[in-house]
Order: sequence, then structure tokens, then C-alpha cells
Amino acid sequence: MASRLLTRLSLHSLRSSLSGCRHVSKAAPQAQMEWDYDGPCMKTAVPGPRSQKLLKKLGDIQNVVAINMFVNYEESRGNYLVDVDGNRMLDVYTQIASIPIGYNHPALHKLMVDPNNLSTFVNRPALGFMPPGDFPDKLAESLLSVAPRGMSRVQTMACGSCSNENAYKAMFIWYKNKERGSSSPTQEDLTSCMVNQSPGSPNLTLLSFSGGFHGRTIGCLASTHTKAMHKLDIPSLDWPMAPFPRLRYPLEEFTRENAAEEARCLEEVEDLLEQGRLKGRPVVGIVVEPIQAEGGDNHASVDFFKSLRNIARKHGCAFHVDEVQTGGGATGKFWAHEHWGLDDPADIVSFSKKLLTGGFYFKDELQPKEPFRIFNTWMGDPTKTLFLGEVLNVIRRENLLEEVARSGTALLQGLNALQAQFPGVLSRARGQGTFCAVDIRDEPTRNKVLLKARDKGVLLGACGDRSIRFRPALIFKEYHVAMFLNIFNDVLAEFK
Amino acid sequence: MASRLLTRLSLHSLRSSLSGCRHVSKAAPQAQMEWDYDGPCMKTAVPGPRSQKLLKKLGDIQNVVAINMFVNYEESRGNYLVDVDGNRMLDVYTQIASIPIGYNHPALHKLMVDPNNLSTFVNRPALGFMPPGDFPDKLAESLLSVAPRGMSRVQTMACGSCSNENAYKAMFIWYKNKERGSSSPTQEDLTSCMVNQSPGSPNLTLLSFSGGFHGRTIGCLASTHTKAMHKLDIPSLDWPMAPFPRLRYPLEEFTRENAAEEARCLEEVEDLLEQGRLKGRPVVGIVVEPIQAEGGDNHASVDFFKSLRNIARKHGCAFHVDEVQTGGGATGKFWAHEHWGLDDPADIVSFSKKLLTGGFYFKDELQPKEPFRIFNTWMGDPTKTLFLGEVLNVIRRENLLEEVARSGTALLQGLNALQAQFPGVLSRARGQGTFCAVDIRDEPTRNKVLLKARDKGVLLGACGDRSIRFRPALIFKEYHVAMFLNIFNDVLAEFK
Repeated sequence: MASRLLTRLSLHSLRSSLSGCRHVSKAAPQAQMEWDYDGPCMKTAVPGPRSQKLLKKLGDIQNVVAINMFVNYEESRGNYLVDVDGNRMLDVYTQIASIPIGYNHPALHKLMVDPNNLSTFVNRPALGFMPPGDFPDKLAESLLSVAPRGMSRVQTMACGSCSNENAYKAMFIWYKNKERGSSSPTQEDLTSCMVNQSPGSPNLTLLSFSGGFHGRTIGCLASTHTKAMHKLDIPSLDWPMAPFPRLRYPLEEFTRENAAEEARCLEEVEDLLEQGRLKGRPVVGIVVEPIQAEGGDNHASVDFFKSLRNIARKHGCAFHVDEVQTGGGATGKFWAHEHWGLDDPADIVSFSKKLLTGGFYFKDELQPKEPFRIFNTWMGDPTKTLFLGEVLNVIRRENLLEEVARSGTALLQGLNALQAQFPGVLSRARGQGTFCAVDIRDEPTRNKVLLKARDKGVLLGACGDRSIRFRPALIFKEYHVAMFLNIFNDVLAEFK
Repeated sequence: MASRLLTRLSLHSLRSSLSGCRHVSKAAPQAQMEWDYDGPCMKTAVPGPRSQKLLKKLGDIQNVVAINMFVNYEESRGNYLVDVDGNRMLDVYTQIASIPIGYNHPALHKLMVDPNNLSTFVNRPALGFMPPGDFPDKLAESLLSVAPRGMSRVQTMACGSCSNENAYKAMFIWYKNKERGSSSPTQEDLTSCMVNQSPGSPNLTLLSFSGGFHGRTIGCLASTHTKAMHKLDIPSLDWPMAPFPRLRYPLEEFTRENAAEEARCLEEVEDLLEQGRLKGRPVVGIVVEPIQAEGGDNHASVDFFKSLRNIARKHGCAFHVDEVQTGGGATGKFWAHEHWGLDDPADIVSFSKKLLTGGFYFKDELQPKEPFRIFNTWMGDPTKTLFLGEVLNVIRRENLLEEVARSGTALLQGLNALQAQFPGVLSRARGQGTFCAVDIRDEPTRNKVLLKARDKGVLLGACGDRSIRFRPALIFKEYHVAMFLNIFNDVLAEFK
């Protein structure tokens, strides 16, 4: 079935004649984007000798264990990353899902050489204090033009963790304000919080999910439950964790089991909310990813999220949808939670990565009245909002969300086909748009598959304990899918 | 005495003839930097009509209570901020102490138009995963070239809060590793941390000080003790707070009292460390600012810091010097803690603001062995390190640290002179380099003084409950000091 698919895409017979390459697995068609390369081209093992030399150099300065290779960003283009040893790889991971429209997109270069933009780069303002005159318009053109339904307010931040930390703070403040009504904080509130004691530092919690990932600062980490090494040794807050559904695939064969699994998880959520109230440690908000990414690309049904949203409302909790990894178009809609089709999907939506700036959208009532409660020196970076505005122009001009939907269908079909062909290796192919994943039979094999794929010129990312996640840029076309599937097919053949 | 000082600086008689200005308080000499303006020039009240219109517009998008005005960054230059209503102000606060060499410095513009730098701006890497090939060299040229004594390791981060959050994590991991020795974490450690429970999420603490400010994310906030509204309603960690010395001024008149005050604080520190051990909640690190900024520009003696450093070592605590606000040259040395002259001043030094990138230096032993423990997607931003490299070139080329020392002496002399002239209004003039402050008789008067100064074309910042902090850029010369003192003199005269 896989080969049928590939034949249909007319790529199987196209063998490249790239010269000077150590390994080219399969065909590369003529690139449709003139600034993109036409295929991978490997010249050395990875990391190559130059990367290895640099690893040693950087190793004297910081921890480099997670570093794969050093990159020549000047030479990288479109869907292709070029490393310092001249290896050119099809990038299906894109800097942990954070490159929206590929490397060195001409539109972004154009923006850089526009002299009108110079001052934005050279003078970084304290945005919450002295913003540039064009800031409201720039927000309107960029972030507000893609605001999730029902949201007209947004706060920028520097990164994903800061976005979530501040979104959490906004929920706590909102909850206490509701509780106080028209009263002011008491003197006891004001003095006790100065020394981290209740009632001013209240015994409130957020509910998160097993397998959820929301960042690595201390507040975010208290709601992150992916890997022990992320959390070990760091003091935390005693916040409740509910189970996230573990769906069985293919979905159509496990309709009843999966519905039961989701019902079980929702029941546990309600139970934890009830327990929190009884213990005097109320849950003020529920934070959830539309697709758990770092935790293993775990999906749940629209019904699950609809019920979760209703439970949050019923119990007076804010509902925080963390779109740091899912936001920005990779699921085929700009926000993954748009797939739920709810009129009132969230109270807070946080973002970063493909949006280039961190931040969060929020409902009116989630905005503290007082100054400086959600605040820091920079509060984001207008250069990132500037880039985002141009990225959105490209997405619209080139209909990239439709492209993603098309490429995503081809990718998932291809993964299903490969899964049928390699049943002992692959399972649980799943995804929305190009935001896809597949499981490998065990962790050691998964890790070997990643290295083999890299040797053949394809960069992939891991997630969960034995999944591979696909996180290409939005310009990853159907012919890139075909090229990837060809190479992946070759890789898997070695593990059959 | 104040007027004597001003006469000595030969500025008193220089009255400007700037046309079209609503208010020019006093003289402006010819600017010595050709790209700087030659004095303030106020055209409207602040916020002016354009700022007010924009405030309304942005108010529909986010909380704007802390916003002073909207800025025309294109027209701002050197020490002068120009707002959207055309008001030009001498900026002695510089975006909360975060503009190192003034607005639109020609050297930074030059960097922007260098085509070799384009790709750095357009392709943001995941630095802990796939750094650019020039990253080790860029770190060496920028951050490592100004590394505090004894430190050759540095980790960049996106902002001050993330820098401190990760520095805290590094200290916790270091402490637990020491405790474990050659053993691995137990299975119980690994499973308990996944649900935020001890022993994996250990009952460890950091000691911070009353009046200390280390950021507003949940971990940082647990060590911040400045204003109740920063902390109210946010759940926190039960970490100990020691008193920070409250020195009496002038220092030479209160030698004995101040020594006693510092001894009292140090005793309390030792007591809290002892209590932590007895309660099974050990303190793993002490975090302190060399000058408490947000908390009111509180200084302590070299002896105090020397003793504190020794106490930390004696009790096996890491010593974290937070230079987010003090770092970057404003005290006349690149790092404020260099004034202590210690051979082994710190285990961790965090920075942000004037360094343009967040991050922290750390000793070898503070580096976790495993990958991904100190990690996030971006881990800083190479465009900021690029700018920092150029800022350091300018600092060296123009001997800006010497200039700061000179300007700082003039500023503190001037403040002392004004204090003698307005004893009912000013007190406790203090500072190091241009990192100066003065107290105003009470909070309402302080706030009025700030507004009056702004009306006359000088931007100042508040700190503590009744202090004014001076945070000019490093290009704030003696003639800017003279200009400022002239205007400040006029402002204070209205409050006599």
C-alpha cells in the first residue's frame, strides 16, 4: 500500500543525480519553491568533523549533551537545514516546531532590509511601560488578526514558559478577585503574601494532565508531567494531575474503548476538582494541550474537550488551552483547538514557537485591573511581532493552511501505509494536518530509527517514550511528504 | 553648594534657545556626541494627545495602567527619548535600566545593515539543540569576554525571570547531586517527582532578602519581597526571607549603627540556615542583589557581602548574585559585585537588561551532567548576543566605564548638594557609578516630583516606597549630569 501511494505521487521512479553526496536515499523532484533546495545531500556522518570540533569548544562553556550538530543557517533554505559540515537535511522537526515558513524565507529577508524597521531592532522597549507608537497597530495586524474566537485581548511575552507562568498568574488573580467581589484585599492578605504565607499566598492549585508539558520554569514545571529528568530535584507545588486519555488506534476499531477511557479521565477530573474544594485547596484553572506534544502526541476527541470545557465552567475554573506547540497552523487550522468547533472554547490561550513571540490571549475578565501584576521589563519583543506579521502575510498569500491540510492527509496516509507494511515496527499513526506522529516498537529502536533517518538526510524529533513526531514547517508540500516517505521507507526496511 | 557645583561645571550660564518648546528648564551645552540631541524639548503635557489616543486603542487589547506614553523610537537618540507627541526627554531611566548605550546608537545601526548578520535575525535556532556554527565564538566575544572572575561557563536565556528560574534549578540539581554522591536517583525519586511529591520534588529552599527582587514568574516570585501587589493571590513556596540591612546615611556618620545592622542581618541569615536544616528543609542557595534595585536601592557594605559569601560556603549553600539590574557597567564596573574585590565572589551570576540577553554564568560544578535539565526551545536569542558584542565594543572603544565613574561622581556630588539645599525634601543620596538614588520625604511627594520632572523633560524612575532611582545609559556624560541637576533643582524648588 505504501508503494502504491508513492507511485501515485509519481516519485518512486525519480532518482536524483545529486553529485558529491555521500547518501541520497531516493528521488527528489524539482522544487516548486525556487528558494528551496531539491533534496537532502549528506556529505559526512552527523555530527561531522566540524560539528564535533565545535561541540568540544562549546562544551567548555555549557552543557552540550542535547546538541545534535552545529548549523549553517546562512545556507539553510526552506525545508532544508544545512549543517556546518555541508550536510543538507530535510527538516521535519524545525527547531522543535518553531520555524513557521522555513529557513531564510525571502519575505523575511525583505523585511530585514527595509530601513523603516531598523529602529525596532535597535531599540528594545519596555513594552508594558513605553511601547512604540505603532504597537497597537502591529498587534492588530499580527496577533489579533488570528485571535481565537471570542478573544480580543492579548499579552506578549518573551517565551513559552513566561507565557504560561503569566497566564497562570492571571487565572489566580482572576479567581481571588471573583472571591473577594467588591472587597479589597485585607491587611493580612497584604502582609502574609510578602513572606509567601497564606492567606495572601493562597493555597490554590491548577489542574494539569499526565503527559502534559507546559514549560520548565518552576510554576510551569508544577503542571508538566512528561519525564522525570525534567522535574527531579526541583521543589514543586502540590497541584493535582488528572490522567489524559490513552487512545487506542486505529480509532475506528476502538470507538467504545476510547469513549470509556475518555469518560474515566473526565470522571477523575471532576473528582479532583471536588477533592480540591473539600480540602480547601480549590482548583482555579485547568490547563491542557489540544494535542499533548512532548508527552507523546496524545490526542483526545472533540467530545472530550467539549466535556472538559463544560466541567471547567461548571466548577468555576478558568480553562487554559496551551497552544505553544500546536498553534500557528501545523494542524491545518491556525489554532488546533479550532477543530473542536466550540463557541466558547477557552478563557486563556497561550502560544510561542511558530508565533515567534510568546504570549497569551485572554478574556476581558482575566485582565487584572491593577498595573504591574502581569508585568516584566520587556514583555515580549516587537521585532518578533514584526516577523509574525510578515509570516501571517505569507500564510495567507500562499494559502499555507490549505497546503498543510493537503500535505497532512498525504503524510498520515503514508504513515498508515508504512504501518501496514512494517507492522512489527510502526503503530498508532496519528495526526492532524502535518502535526503527525507514529510509535516505534520500543525506545531503543525509536532512537536508532531517528539516527538512521538523519544519516539519510531527514531530521525527525522524538516525543513520549517511543514516538516520533513530525513537525515540518508550513511550506512542507506534498512532494516533500513523498520524499520523506521514500526515505522513511528505506530506514524502516532496515528494522523489519 | 549645589549652585557652586553647577558653576564649576560651567553650565549654569548656558541657556538654550531651542525654539518651539513649551518648556526648557535650563541650559543645554553643545552635545559632544553628534548623534545625541542637545537638550529636552517639551511640546505638550505628558501623555500628550497622541499618546492618549493610543492608550485608548491599546487599552482595548491589554492592561495599560503602567504605560506612561507611547514612544517614537525612530526619533529617539542617545540619552533622549522622543514620544509620539514630539516631546523630547532626557532619559534617566532608560526602559527600566535596559538600554546600555542610548537610543539608535550608530554602531548598532551599522550592525543591522551588515548583510552577514541577516540570517541570524531571520532564523531563530533552538540554541540548546542546533546552535549556529559561530555560536561558541559569539559567546566568547560577547558574554565570556566580560565573565565575572572565576567563571568560564554561561547559559543564555530569553529574559531576567527565565535566567533566575534556571539558575535556581541549577542550584537545586547541584545540591541533590552532591547529596547523592555517586548513587543514582532512586525509583521513588523518579516516580514521586512526576506527581510533584517528595522525595523527587524535594523540600528544599532558597534564601532571599526583604526588599529583594528577582522576577515575577512563580519560582522567582517566591524569592521576591518588594511590593504586595506583585505577590498577592499567587501561590508560592515556603522559602525563608532574611532582613536586608537598612543603612543610615550619610554612611560616615553612622559607621557603628550600620555595622550593627549588618551584623544583625547576617545573624538572622545563619539562624535561618540552621532552622532550615533542623526542620529538614535545607537552604540550598542564597540569592542576593549587589544593590537592591526595585526594593529601593538598598546598599550594603563590602564586609556584609564578604561575610554573606563566607556563610554560604560554610553552610554548603550556593551563592547566587543577581546582577539583572546592576550588571552591564552602570556602577562603574561591569559587574557591581566586582566592587567587593573577592577572589571567589559567587557560584552563579545572573543577568539581563543592559546585557540585552538574559542568562547566567556558573561554576563548573553547577552544570548538570544530563541533557534537557536546563533547557527550553530557544534558550536565548543569538541576535541579542550579536548586539551585546557590539555594545561591548563601544564600551571599550569609548572607555564608557570610566565615563560612568566620572558621571557617577558628579551625580552623587550633585545629589548631596541638592540634599543639603533641600533637607526637607531629599535624603539618603546614595549610589555607585551612575547607579544612584535619593529618597523623597514621602510617597505622594515622590510621585509628584517624578511627574514634575517629566513635565520639564526628565524621565526618572521610582523604587522602594519613596525613592527615585537614576538609571541613565552608559553614555550619560558629566554635562548630562549637570543638565539633569539644573532641572532637578528647579523641580525641587517647587516642593521646598
